Amino acid sequence: MNGKKRKPLYDVSRTLSDVATGKSKADLVIKNGTLVNVYTGELLSQMDVAIAQGRIAYVGDASHTIGDNTTVIDASGRFISPGLLDGHMHVESTMLTVTEFAKAALAKGTTGIFMDPHEIANVFGTEGVKWMHEEGQGLPLKVYTTYPSCVPATDDLEDAGATLEVSDIAEGMTWDGVEGLGEVMNFPGVVFGDPKMAGEIEATLRAGKTVTGHFPAEDEPMLQAYIASGASSCHETVTKEQGLLKLRLGMHLMVREGSAWRDVKEVIKVVTEDHVRTDNILLVTDDTYPQTLVEKGHLNHVVRRTIEEGVDPVTAIQMGSINTARYFKLDGDIGGIAPGKCADILLIDDLHRMEPSTVIADGTVVYDSGELKVEFPVYDYPAKAKSSVHLARPLESQDFLLTSVSSLDETTVQVIDVIENSARTAKTTAKLQVSNGIIQPDLEGDVIQLACIERHQGTGDISLAFARGFKLKRGAVASTVAHDSHNLLVMGTNPDDMAVAANELAKQGGGMIVVLDGEVLAAVPMAIAGLMSDQPLETVVQQVSELEAAWKTLGCPLNAPFMTFSLVALPVIPEIRISNRGLVDVTQFKLIPVEITE
Amino acid sequence: MNGKKRKPLYDVSRTLSDVATGKSKADLVIKNGTLVNVYTGELLSQMDVAIAQGRIAYVGDASHTIGDNTTVIDASGRFISPGLLDGHMHVESTMLTVTEFAKAALAKGTTGIFMDPHEIANVFGTEGVKWMHEEGQGLPLKVYTTYPSCVPATDDLEDAGATLEVSDIAEGMTWDGVEGLGEVMNFPGVVFGDPKMAGEIEATLRAGKTVTGHFPAEDEPMLQAYIASGASSCHETVTKEQGLLKLRLGMHLMVREGSAWRDVKEVIKVVTEDHVRTDNILLVTDDTYPQTLVEKGHLNHVVRRTIEEGVDPVTAIQMGSINTARYFKLDGDIGGIAPGKCADILLIDDLHRMEPSTVIADGTVVYDSGELKVEFPVYDYPAKAKSSVHLARPLESQDFLLTSVSSLDETTVQVIDVIENSARTAKTTAKLQVSNGIIQPDLEGDVIQLACIERHQGTGDISLAFARGFKLKRGAVASTVAHDSHNLLVMGTNPDDMAVAANELAKQGGGMIVVLDGEVLAAVPMAIAGLMSDQPLETVVQQVSELEAAWKTLGCPLNAPFMTFSLVALPVIPEIRISNRGLVDVTQFKLIPVEITE
Repeated sequence: MNGKKRKPLYDVSRTLSDVATGKSKADLVIKNGTLVNVYTGELLSQMDVAIAQGRIAYVGDASHTIGDNTTVIDASGRFISPGLLDGHMHVESTMLTVTEFAKAALAKGTTGIFMDPHEIANVFGTEGVKWMHEEGQGLPLKVYTTYPSCVPATDDLEDAGATLEVSDIAEGMTWDGVEGLGEVMNFPGVVFGDPKMAGEIEATLRAGKTVTGHFPAEDEPMLQAYIASGASSCHETVTKEQGLLKLRLGMHLMVREGSAWRDVKEVIKVVTEDHVRTDNILLVTDDTYPQTLVEKGHLNHVVRRTIEEGVDPVTAIQMGSINTARYFKLDGDIGGIAPGKCADILLIDDLHRMEPSTVIADGTVVYDSGELKVEFPVYDYPAKAKSSVHLARPLESQDFLLTSVSSLDETTVQVIDVIENSARTAKTTAKLQVSNGIIQPDLEGDVIQLACIERHQGTGDISLAFARGFKLKRGAVASTVAHDSHNLLVMGTNPDDMAVAANELAKQGGGMIVVLDGEVLAAVPMAIAGLMSDQPLETVVQQVSELEAAWKTLGCPLNAPFMTFSLVALPVIPEIRISNRGLVDVTQFKLIPVEITE
Repeated sequence: MNGKKRKPLYDVSRTLSDVATGKSKADLVIKNGTLVNVYTGELLSQMDVAIAQGRIAYVGDASHTIGDNTTVIDASGRFISPGLLDGHMHVESTMLTVTEFAKAALAKGTTGIFMDPHEIANVFGTEGVKWMHEEGQGLPLKVYTTYPSCVPATDDLEDAGATLEVSDIAEGMTWDGVEGLGEVMNFPGVVFGDPKMAGEIEATLRAGKTVTGHFPAEDEPMLQAYIASGASSCHETVTKEQGLLKLRLGMHLMVREGSAWRDVKEVIKVVTEDHVRTDNILLVTDDTYPQTLVEKGHLNHVVRRTIEEGVDPVTAIQMGSINTARYFKLDGDIGGIAPGKCADILLIDDLHRMEPSTVIADGTVVYDSGELKVEFPVYDYPAKAKSSVHLARPLESQDFLLTSVSSLDETTVQVIDVIENSARTAKTTAKLQVSNGIIQPDLEGDVIQLACIERHQGTGDISLAFARGFKLKRGAVASTVAHDSHNLLVMGTNPDDMAVAANELAKQGGGMIVVLDGEVLAAVPMAIAGLMSDQPLETVVQQVSELEAAWKTLGCPLNAPFMTFSLVALPVIPEIRISNRGLVDVTQFKLIPVEITE
């Protein structure tokens, strides 16, 4: 059963009653497993679950619901767990369409997600949000949307492909399956009364939906002001102390373990050390890269990590199921195994390993014995979605030459110093040679040319700056995944390869690319919005591996350097970034010159 | 601040932010108490709470929010607890208007109730529901309504004053402050597909509201079918085993301690013996009589009883605050002490005694030092509400004479045998003398004449039957409180006093009365719908005491006999009842003759 065929409880409760009382028979019965009861926190042995019309009709001894046409699954020796729910994630980070992601996620036991299609919103605005949301509605994975709240991420520092207004959010709240407002990142705006932020929150609360938050700072008065606005969760917590504080202040604590962010170890100490009540604690992934999906899994990995840190398995599963459902006011439909709920169920051999051997969504076995068991509908993105890279003209080598404002042979420049496995950058400086008026990169000193090219409207805007930390020795790289406005980001050791990288990436519709000596070494084409591939997970994983190897060929020793690279243009995280408008000092929220002049 | 002036969060969040960040000052600060943190389950010492515009702006060290115009309350040595929420109750049982009840409840620390105005609905239908709901909206007590679901209680066995249809429920769900459907008592109707029940539940779920349940039976398939309908709570649980079962099946367990029902001792064993997760456990009163309000309190008494049974005080308070708020999806506004929430706060000296010394509602001190501190608005019930007893004509003595269908000197009759402190009755028989064709009561054998007179439309319908167990030796009693259709119920040792009791009670507009030798011994006039007094609690308590004493004068040794009496006409609880249409066998849901003939 896909989402479009999913029925509300009141349309099927008659059938469920008849099955429960034995008047009619179940479609499917899971026999004799150990039930993970997320309502009481118990493990209950020798339990059956009877299912009809995609929902649960009976839990306990369901022998009386088995008829000639009932499929019976023997769950002896296995745990019967509710499907896992990811309370906050961006599908775009997986580089997959919602459909291809859904296949991978269901196989790992995720049966529902709350996605914030923030990236595509920066490229295509409401239209992009609508495409991904609609795609999600047709899938066996339950895809709920939290409407992106901060598009663009900054007002005056960059040009995204679109701007979302309060009216867009209000309209989005009327869509079926939109369950809240996506992470409200502009916390200073919230605290200091930005009318757009206030308007978005009001529209969400008026619709009776949930305002999800994002508060990475440590200023307690600001935090309390932020909470008093109505933002009721945070997934940006990295210390136990902040986690405890947020819980005490009534927030829902979203403990995150994604590809780049690994917060479980520290933050879960609120439970293992402080033993707080756990019902406001949720597990989320935020950003998961394709390789991580294959190697570690999805929300099951977060649950597993939580258990590894000493949390009781049932409690950990609660954090990835009923707690999340309740936070979004959907516990009448999802989050646990009880009469009337959607039959989203995992059969798991070992709760510590958390790998489902069978996955049931809306009463249908969607994954079993290592294979997907259902066809997924094909969502056709419109042609417009696949034409998102608009350049004024092809780039030329000289576009990447930065002219010095002084007439000296040497100049001092601001440098974006990246930090491996961190979203932060450090603001540093370098002395560079000037030759024929052009500032020269310093490959030995690891000061490399960077460019950010407007790619949404084809304005021709190009800004140039310098980066340190990637250690490229040759060639060039480019990416249209460049948070949050997703312009065309290019970095290289020479202007010729930079021009080739930019032009070739534009030609393939966006994505990520590595070029050496005028030739494409590797690429991950991302046809949709320049953010998502239209290929299956396996293909993307292969392409990403090749891309990573190509980065190494250019001399870069970093782990997942293309991810660090994609954050170089994100002007909301300190300290210094590049946007299509120029170099951004994020500690002051303003554009600054590249050259330091007296 | 009364309900009509209460503002949504987004109207005041700007002010709260400014107070939190120190830009402006709080209206009220509670200093230096021990916070009952219902989110984490902790007691946190030396905490302040800053309040502005009726909501909480800051929790912690709030020194920076205190200005020249800030009122400061010293909470040293006291606990700061969220106000208590009663998840299910009938205000009519208190015999008070919502306003007079609110005064008593606030003084005991109840700051919010979810009332089911089921009794007035049986007299005045939607109009009655609207009056009580509107009255509630003007009070400092937060009065939320769950819309009555089963009016009348039975289809063909009695005549209530009104009938509620699915369209009434759908309309009610659009009223501000209606948060759900009242206890769905007709559980067989739900399970076996009564279209009215299904329609009401659908209307409630479509509105995104909560369907509260009522499942007193022990049939597990029926229970599971009932849950699968969408009914998500039950307050009719009297054994630990049933409580555990309901929790495991995803229900919210409402543990009840009212005047007649005292379920905490047994049902709370799910926590003290089985240690289940407690977030789906709520405390409720259901029915509280005026005497109990004075002697024991309201929800604070239920919390106290829960603590007495061995539950940790913070956990018990959670069951009477945040758990309830969350069940009704209102935890963004109420249920805990955190930024943004309504400032409904109790200061308590001793958590085991659970008597608040100060009560704050919407940031205003409403009770302190043993006194209410605010004026309550006066709600004017319309004249119609005060004219609810309609008789075809004054009753006469011979109306109470039951003619035998046989011509013998003796006959066998069905008898309603009441059980002290129980809502159940036993179906028994008695041999009675027949004199001049009239069946004679047997005072020595405690078989007393009973009559039920239609009082809503003035149809003149009278039915006669016999009761045992009240042990009246003289005089007569009457009541218009006669669940659920609230017709005029009369019982007496002689037809003259019965006629006087009926006529005098009708004259005073309904209520309860005791008559001896043609004189009124005691009465509790209930002007509003014949269900609620328009007098304050103290007056009603005094009248009820006199009434109880008068019952004793007539020879009745029972505890609160008028309450047992008011249930004699309730044809939904086994085994046998009287309605205005006749004698009802509740095990068969049909009318039966009084005389047993071959």
